[in-house]
Amino acid sequence: RSSLITGCYANRVGISGALVPSSKIGLDSEELTIAEVVKPLGYATACFGKWHLGHRRPFLPRQHGFDEYSGIPYSNDMWPGHPESPKAWPPLPWYENDEPSEIIKDLEGQEQITRRLTEKAVDFVHRNADGPFLLYLPHSMPHVPLGVGPRFRQTTRYGTYGDVIREIDASVGEIRAALEEEGVLDRTIFIFASDNGPWLSYGDHAGTTGGLREGKGTTFEGGIRVPLVVRYPGVVPAGSVCAEPCMTIDILPTLVELTGGKAPQKPIDGRSIVSLLRGEADASSPHEALFFWYRNVELQAMRMGRWKLHFPHNYRSLEGRAPGNNGIPAKYNYKMSVGLALYDLETDAAETTDCSDENPDVVARMKTLADRMRQKLGDTLTRTQGSEIRGPGRLPSG
Amino acid sequence: RSSLITGCYANRVGISGALVPSSKIGLDSEELTIAEVVKPLGYATACFGKWHLGHRRPFLPRQHGFDEYSGIPYSNDMWPGHPESPKAWPPLPWYENDEPSEIIKDLEGQEQITRRLTEKAVDFVHRNADGPFLLYLPHSMPHVPLGVGPRFRQTTRYGTYGDVIREIDASVGEIRAALEEEGVLDRTIFIFASDNGPWLSYGDHAGTTGGLREGKGTTFEGGIRVPLVVRYPGVVPAGSVCAEPCMTIDILPTLVELTGGKAPQKPIDGRSIVSLLRGEADASSPHEALFFWYRNVELQAMRMGRWKLHFPHNYRSLEGRAPGNNGIPAKYNYKMSVGLALYDLETDAAETTDCSDENPDVVARMKTLADRMRQKLGDTLTRTQGSEIRGPGRLPSG
Repeated sequence: RSSLITGCYANRVGISGALVPSSKIGLDSEELTIAEVVKPLGYATACFGKWHLGHRRPFLPRQHGFDEYSGIPYSNDMWPGHPESPKAWPPLPWYENDEPSEIIKDLEGQEQITRRLTEKAVDFVHRNADGPFLLYLPHSMPHVPLGVGPRFRQTTRYGTYGDVIREIDASVGEIRAALEEEGVLDRTIFIFASDNGPWLSYGDHAGTTGGLREGKGTTFEGGIRVPLVVRYPGVVPAGSVCAEPCMTIDILPTLVELTGGKAPQKPIDGRSIVSLLRGEADASSPHEALFFWYRNVELQAMRMGRWKLHFPHNYRSLEGRAPGNNGIPAKYNYKMSVGLALYDLETDAAETTDCSDENPDVVARMKTLADRMRQKLGDTLTRTQGSEIRGPGRLPSG
Repeated sequence: RSSLITGCYANRVGISGALVPSSKIGLDSEELTIAEVVKPLGYATACFGKWHLGHRRPFLPRQHGFDEYSGIPYSNDMWPGHPESPKAWPPLPWYENDEPSEIIKDLEGQEQITRRLTEKAVDFVHRNADGPFLLYLPHSMPHVPLGVGPRFRQTTRYGTYGDVIREIDASVGEIRAALEEEGVLDRTIFIFASDNGPWLSYGDHAGTTGGLREGKGTTFEGGIRVPLVVRYPGVVPAGSVCAEPCMTIDILPTLVELTGGKAPQKPIDGRSIVSLLRGEADASSPHEALFFWYRNVELQAMRMGRWKLHFPHNYRSLEGRAPGNNGIPAKYNYKMSVGLALYDLETDAAETTDCSDENPDVVARMKTLADRMRQKLGDTLTRTQGSEIRGPGRLPSG
């Protein structure tokens, strides 16, 4: 989330790993957000959904350029209804702007979230369609615990997870309809993306990678390769598909280019992907390499064009274990390990066959790029301190 | 249901097959019900749940000896939310006594049914515990569409079906607790039973037969062998298990014996199973044979002690087809057939091995009993008219 909001690798802005209700840090006020990029242009801005960039007052959306905020401040399973650690979590609040307005006390509350966010979004569109606006809608679903409104329950062949996805799909459809009704659909950049792959331990309450290796919580493709859909007539050719890699760090600089908004003063990692969006014949990724940290700044893997390099690290897997069911997860094996391994994603997206021996030059080049990046943003696997890490916002002490 | 209520094979009282919203028949007022057995003894009586013995006013529970009624008049999938034939059904009403009080218009309404019936039952117990009472609670769940209250969703490892069963289990627990609180638990006959085996086409929204052949809608054991649990201290030895066959037709005469209530004047099929309930050493089924009709009085099968005899008939099966999922059923193959086949349920409860050739005397005896029964209650497989069929109650014509 911090990557999408700031255009930076999360560790650059000091947020590495999911914040928990006891966290006292958050997104620093010095970081420029997607909302602050367009705010000076007169945009109305709103965030409806899961914020998760600090739920203490100084870190909430309204302190980061969003005029309006409604939603939950962190993950929806950080609550007393957690199937494995209910006592770890305080009651889950729902916020309106800067204040908690109510408690989501049971699954019935969870089941209303998608509808409520959709209504907020549609209302925002109708209220602001006569001027420019930016709407950031981070749905909390399909994160567990899965909650689906009665209108969508038992409407797909794919169980509760399928029903939840259908409700999200309908949400997108309603917002699209609102834009159309207001006559602004075709001059709106519509971006839809997911934040990580399926949470495999939840079995039927998670999605599928379609054959990619592993899932959420790993740097294998099953954990990080997700859909990105962009609609913007006149820029994105209808129906075009792009195979070049990009990341959520690229959203902010892309919006800067498309809107003519304010660019961040501080260094960011993302690059505009407008040429990719335009489908230009010779367009390629603006990045020589993309980097994947996990577990508090372990630089576990990186990608360079067709190549994916894993550095030796441990990861979690269900390997040989039955997945969970009906919202109750199975336990991962956290001791799986992968050594230095190069995969050719063009021919082996499932990351099955290490081809580092056959491609020493590729490995050498990637290692060089990785070293450079480690020096900047750190890596606990090699005990490297990053020189460019800016650190999160912190509550005043005392 | 007519069997349980009247102690008769359903076709004896003219109700063979599930009534639909357009049905104009119902349980005839001349039939004596379990409520009318005990009413003259001063019992307070109530039916909370799925009635399905005629939803026209002359056939409703209050016209059959029940002081109070709340619930749905027929199956909960006979509504516009039906996944396969939504247009076939009118809105599903909820009744309070003789009148529809509201419409169950969506799944959210279905999800409240179990809780509402439980509350009705608990309230009834508290209001009537100072005198004798009879409470008939035909839960409409776990019939599809499955509806489970938010308190029970995602609380089992077995999906929505598991959650629904857990809610029903909790319902029984709450009623038991109410009886205990009132100090009447140990002088209450507590009977819990199911009405048929799993609806296999609904896949994960049905239960399992645990290896029995076929399911609901057939006369194989998977369709008809169901749990029966009776608690009655002083009569039923705690923890005892009885392997003798009985049927819901036996409930009424058993209640007649236990309560000293009024016995029906007209012939019934059931027999008291009090000696079985007492766990008497030499007790055996009071029936030489039990008979299984399906598809409007096809006498498809019968049981005599350890023996089960099927008469040649067609049946439905998923044989070789994937079951449905998430409330959307698969289609049955209705053209499966079984010939004359004898199974030894003591060694072959799964009905896999026809042993009619080895047991000609058994087959002959059973055929004789079947012929006698056909003469009385009819059989469309052999085009036999039954002489003792009394017919249902009908609305006055014109």
